[in-house]
Amino acid sequence: MSKKLPKRSEDFSAWYNELVKTANLAENSAVRGCMVIKPYGFAIWELMKDQLDKMFKETGHQNAYFPIFVPKSLFEAEEKNAEGFAKECAVVTHYRLKTDPENKSKLIVDPEAKLEEELIVRPTSEAIIWNTYRGWVQSYRDLPLLINQWANVVRWEMRTRLFLRTTEFLWQEGHTAHATKQEAVAEAKTMHDVYATFAQEWMAMPVVKGYKSDSERFAGADDTFTIEALMQDGKALQAGTSHFLGQNFAEAFNVKFQTAAGKEELVWGTSWGVSTRLMGALIMTHSDDEGLVLPPKLAPYQVVIIPFLNKKKVEQNEMLLDKSYEIKAELEKFGIRVQIDTDETKRPGFKFAEYELKGYPVRLVVGPRDLENNQVEIARRDTKEKSLQNLDGIGSYLNELLTEMQDAIFSKALNYRDNHITTVTTFEEFKNVLETKGGFIAAHWDGTEETEEEIKNATKATIRCIPLEAKEEEGVCVFSGKPSRRKVLFAKAY
Amino acid sequence: MSKKLPKRSEDFSAWYNELVKTANLAENSAVRGCMVIKPYGFAIWELMKDQLDKMFKETGHQNAYFPIFVPKSLFEAEEKNAEGFAKECAVVTHYRLKTDPENKSKLIVDPEAKLEEELIVRPTSEAIIWNTYRGWVQSYRDLPLLINQWANVVRWEMRTRLFLRTTEFLWQEGHTAHATKQEAVAEAKTMHDVYATFAQEWMAMPVVKGYKSDSERFAGADDTFTIEALMQDGKALQAGTSHFLGQNFAEAFNVKFQTAAGKEELVWGTSWGVSTRLMGALIMTHSDDEGLVLPPKLAPYQVVIIPFLNKKKVEQNEMLLDKSYEIKAELEKFGIRVQIDTDETKRPGFKFAEYELKGYPVRLVVGPRDLENNQVEIARRDTKEKSLQNLDGIGSYLNELLTEMQDAIFSKALNYRDNHITTVTTFEEFKNVLETKGGFIAAHWDGTEETEEEIKNATKATIRCIPLEAKEEEGVCVFSGKPSRRKVLFAKAY
Repeated sequence: MSKKLPKRSEDFSAWYNELVKTANLAENSAVRGCMVIKPYGFAIWELMKDQLDKMFKETGHQNAYFPIFVPKSLFEAEEKNAEGFAKECAVVTHYRLKTDPENKSKLIVDPEAKLEEELIVRPTSEAIIWNTYRGWVQSYRDLPLLINQWANVVRWEMRTRLFLRTTEFLWQEGHTAHATKQEAVAEAKTMHDVYATFAQEWMAMPVVKGYKSDSERFAGADDTFTIEALMQDGKALQAGTSHFLGQNFAEAFNVKFQTAAGKEELVWGTSWGVSTRLMGALIMTHSDDEGLVLPPKLAPYQVVIIPFLNKKKVEQNEMLLDKSYEIKAELEKFGIRVQIDTDETKRPGFKFAEYELKGYPVRLVVGPRDLENNQVEIARRDTKEKSLQNLDGIGSYLNELLTEMQDAIFSKALNYRDNHITTVTTFEEFKNVLETKGGFIAAHWDGTEETEEEIKNATKATIRCIPLEAKEEEGVCVFSGKPSRRKVLFAKAY
Repeated sequence: MSKKLPKRSEDFSAWYNELVKTANLAENSAVRGCMVIKPYGFAIWELMKDQLDKMFKETGHQNAYFPIFVPKSLFEAEEKNAEGFAKECAVVTHYRLKTDPENKSKLIVDPEAKLEEELIVRPTSEAIIWNTYRGWVQSYRDLPLLINQWANVVRWEMRTRLFLRTTEFLWQEGHTAHATKQEAVAEAKTMHDVYATFAQEWMAMPVVKGYKSDSERFAGADDTFTIEALMQDGKALQAGTSHFLGQNFAEAFNVKFQTAAGKEELVWGTSWGVSTRLMGALIMTHSDDEGLVLPPKLAPYQVVIIPFLNKKKVEQNEMLLDKSYEIKAELEKFGIRVQIDTDETKRPGFKFAEYELKGYPVRLVVGPRDLENNQVEIARRDTKEKSLQNLDGIGSYLNELLTEMQDAIFSKALNYRDNHITTVTTFEEFKNVLETKGGFIAAHWDGTEETEEEIKNATKATIRCIPLEAKEEEGVCVFSGKPSRRKVLFAKAY
């Protein structure tokens, strides 16, 4: 911990990369664009996954698992979807290696083991799943199908960044099938709500709920709902999307059902997903120049207990350790996740920096002098405030503190986000705000793809979403001056 | 449910395939050899996964995630391992598709997007993980590394069967690194024990613990520990393996550490895994001609409550449903997983057969006449015994019954297994037992690969394991007549 992180204000991108690596969250692998998620990073992801899984099950979904490969002929069946992903597909063409006849210790691809039909490594699973659903749906009684899968997917990205954009990533993808349009739209909205709730209540990350413009919509969807978050560098991040698929995939894969009245109709669909990208969002929303700041609900350990050990004082150490385990047991009664640091070889200052880097919400130091007064030192990671606390009732005190911190971390992020939604009326202002302040820009837009494209080319800002809350009002487009009915949110985005 | 399953005694293989499909566990997909795990099957797998994950964490392991792709040059570094898997590798050679110039609605592999180095879809992850470990281990302080990952792997199999042998399957793979040989061997044995405990206490499936002969050992391991189970058709099934890797991967990937004394040494390794194959083992160990039999600990729902609904009796239905929900709440207090069947359209007989097929351990029927006596009808899936039970104390009664059933199901399987370990002294007897009775054959073996191979060619039986419990004793090989020090277990195997 002698090496400090770059400062966010000086180089946000270097700060992020360095933090992800030094806090042991993830690292690049020997495979271009693919990451290794390290145990500490994975523990955070597991907490996210467990909570999301619970929310999916509470809303009536079941998990299943579909193949990682998609035969090319299935992949291309829904044309828009295929077109949208074709340029990012890893393709399996052979199924065997053999010894290199010119170098016996090397292997080569066996040219005789060429597949008749190439297999695409799934970039998303609509194709293989809808092809399966055809066999599962005959009658209205088979609907709805409410299925989710946790899986890895591969999209061949040219510029990758740990968690934010990687060639392989982990995600969940929900795929549902319904008898009516109304029901499918309601499902897409329900999952949009689930994502927003999770982002705000668990990740302590405020999000704007909205829907995508035509050009930003998922390839193959009729409507894409999105939650958009704001990072500390003023760039937006799309954190989760829920798609109303209309009957597009049902048509491409011929998924029909018999209605109660005996008619044959095409099924309506949705799909929705969040990925390990949320890890990047979590890090960039809350962390500071000393390291990770984690909302307590997603901290693998919420409290680290550091007894003030001294190699030369064996008896005292024993007493401090006993006390530490006692406190740990007390905290665990409240469901608090606790770690004790029993290392005698490292200095306290070193340890403090290490746990700050890793974002442990609370540090509890058990020192001999404080103990005489039945006290311990508590330090909050988010505000860095320190205080002495009596050991009586320490469990309920910390339990409340963790709840308070979860709220405080959310409020701070919300405050930042709200201060970074700027309404503009002219394109000069638009460009000015974008360059000097960043964040979301609320502006009228004429609703055309051409304007969207021109603004993007001129500023790199895209329409992040049309907020669900955007009120109808007369206005003129910030770029074209043409009439507009509502303001939309622009931003530069990850 | 008009269609009956084939009988196990007539065609075990057809019975298995049909059961897997009709009980909604899994089905074949459009991708050769890859399966779709359906929600009910996946729910069982989730219960297995949750318990195993808990046991891994209790033994000090953490989860992480490593890339699905292995660059060919890394893959071939540990030669024996590479050789062992080369013939089963799916290979990614390209990273982009493009529109077919001759047919605009089709896609073709873009020949310009050929990878410089091919990527192997992991058949197992030793190579990519040990290549990563090189960066994680410098000093003895960095050891041990105790890491597990839950992942999908791909092995190109020519003959596939749902769950038992599929091109893609789900598994966990533990990969650990240690400072000493002793510690690594102890780790491999610990995980061997964890697997045996899980198999017996959760799957209710007796296993023989042993180690593999040289020819059956994992490619790249110095020792492979295995748990071997016996299916109802008398064939053995390898249910989990734990490998002591020696320093083979450390050497291939140059993973060294500095000892406390300042010397540089190679790291010692283990790896261990179980897969969705366990689903096949679970099914074939306990199920019967009416369908699945599940040990209660692995049943997604342990009790189904069926109120005796009658379309014409609205008021009575309401009363029966109220009572059903009341019972459900009572059972849930004991942590029992309960489902209520509220369908008014299907006949009870149809429902009973359906829940038998799906292996719900207990069926609880709420009928108007029994209710007058404050009773319900209970049917056990394993023995098919029915009884009337008073509703007072129904929760604790069923809680105990489920424990009793878990034990009974294990005992039954253990009894079958123990009756199917036959000791033979001549090769005639060996062949005779194998053909007429099946099961494990305990016989002396001279310890040579040649004899093992000849027995396999003559009978299709292989050495399943050298049991840890096999006592040292003088004897002569059942095939060659040469001296032998212990009996080993032969069987035909999945």
